[in-house]
Amino acid sequence: MDFKINLSAWRRRKIEFWNRLWEDLEIGYLDEDLIGILLILNTDINIYTLSSCSGRITVSDSTYPWSREESSVVFKKHVPITINEVLDVLKKPVVRRLWLNSTGPILHLSTNSLEYADKILSMARKAGLKHSGIISMNPDKGYIIELTSGVKISHLLRSQNILLAKEDSLEEIVKVANEVLLEGKKVLIRMFKVFRSELPWNPDDNIISDLKSRGIDIDKYDPYKIYRKYIRLNNI
Amino acid sequence: MDFKINLSAWRRRKIEFWNRLWEDLEIGYLDEDLIGILLILNTDINIYTLSSCSGRITVSDSTYPWSREESSVVFKKHVPITINEVLDVLKKPVVRRLWLNSTGPILHLSTNSLEYADKILSMARKAGLKHSGIISMNPDKGYIIELTSGVKISHLLRSQNILLAKEDSLEEIVKVANEVLLEGKKVLIRMFKVFRSELPWNPDDNIISDLKSRGIDIDKYDPYKIYRKYIRLNNI
Repeated sequence: MDFKINLSAWRRRKIEFWNRLWEDLEIGYLDEDLIGILLILNTDINIYTLSSCSGRITVSDSTYPWSREESSVVFKKHVPITINEVLDVLKKPVVRRLWLNSTGPILHLSTNSLEYADKILSMARKAGLKHSGIISMNPDKGYIIELTSGVKISHLLRSQNILLAKEDSLEEIVKVANEVLLEGKKVLIRMFKVFRSELPWNPDDNIISDLKSRGIDIDKYDPYKIYRKYIRLNNI
Repeated sequence: MDFKINLSAWRRRKIEFWNRLWEDLEIGYLDEDLIGILLILNTDINIYTLSSCSGRITVSDSTYPWSREESSVVFKKHVPITINEVLDVLKKPVVRRLWLNSTGPILHLSTNSLEYADKILSMARKAGLKHSGIISMNPDKGYIIELTSGVKISHLLRSQNILLAKEDSLEEIVKVANEVLLEGKKVLIRMFKVFRSELPWNPDDNIISDLKSRGIDIDKYDPYKIYRKYIRLNNI
């Protein structure tokens, strides 16, 4: 084959998702740790981003941590948690099992060419996002890529009436879950660095003028400068 | 772009991996649960399989379950485990942390066209392998696809001197790890069923004659029949 991308449809979707990104940011729905990498990606004329998560800790009441049906997330945070927060969750009744999940970042993006998709996958591998791949392709939507790493744990806290996380061991579990979350943020920083230095400069003029209208200027020679206003990750 | 696959190089690699598959089977290195799906895939002229795992339970001594460096697998099985096996592992000294990992199947395969890669990804999604994707592309190696699901847990058993899995809760953890392993085998069965019914019949004559020389005949109208000799999965 060779998918013929419908560039005008692809472009319309880019604008849609770009506007949604700013709405999500304004209502506080978008995790600010993501802004740097999302701006780098969307500033490129061949890329738009879809959903993304910078990494999070959740407690789910479900038979298995990956269950979607018959499953409820009873606790969710994108920053480190405390033992007391978990103790509070453990006080409530459990329908199935309680899992403490700590996961690294996951990003979905679209490119309008296979060549670009290949380039992005190479950069992703370099940044340690070893489970990244093109998950689907569609003339209107483009080549959809999932960027993800192996940073993840799912620890069984409670199985119906059996409590596995006794108070004396909870401190260690929470400590490790927080460490895993931070390992995920490190992956995000590595991703940011690799894309910033290796993505060729193919700016999307619409995006750049939209950023200008939001009071954000781009430095062609160091596009990173545009992001300073939003980035809160240290050590970049 | 549009990768031009070097078909003769691709073909040589298929033969290499096909021979390795039978060597692995003979020395007992290949998990027999995989044979059905591996034969279906390799019988297709546009596909060859690389490494694969039908799902397994491991105990690793590592800072994080995904660590590769400074990490050692102290226990590994492709079938359900017993409490005594875990108790034995827990008696040994720990350098970092002990993780009980139970994971579903993961398969790597190559196709010689993007069209076929797309077809395979659709089938994979249908079978519930939601994290499948094209992870790389190369003229000689082809479009490399990773087929994988979210079936996975990593439970912290011990962190240096802190034992988190007390004997009274270990029974439940082992029970759940075994359940997760079986959930992975179910994914494998779903994958087998979907590929058997949806993969178009494009037989690779070399593979079929090689199978014949091994005493295995193919029924064109029900290729499944070739596999009966090897498959040990129930309920297919």
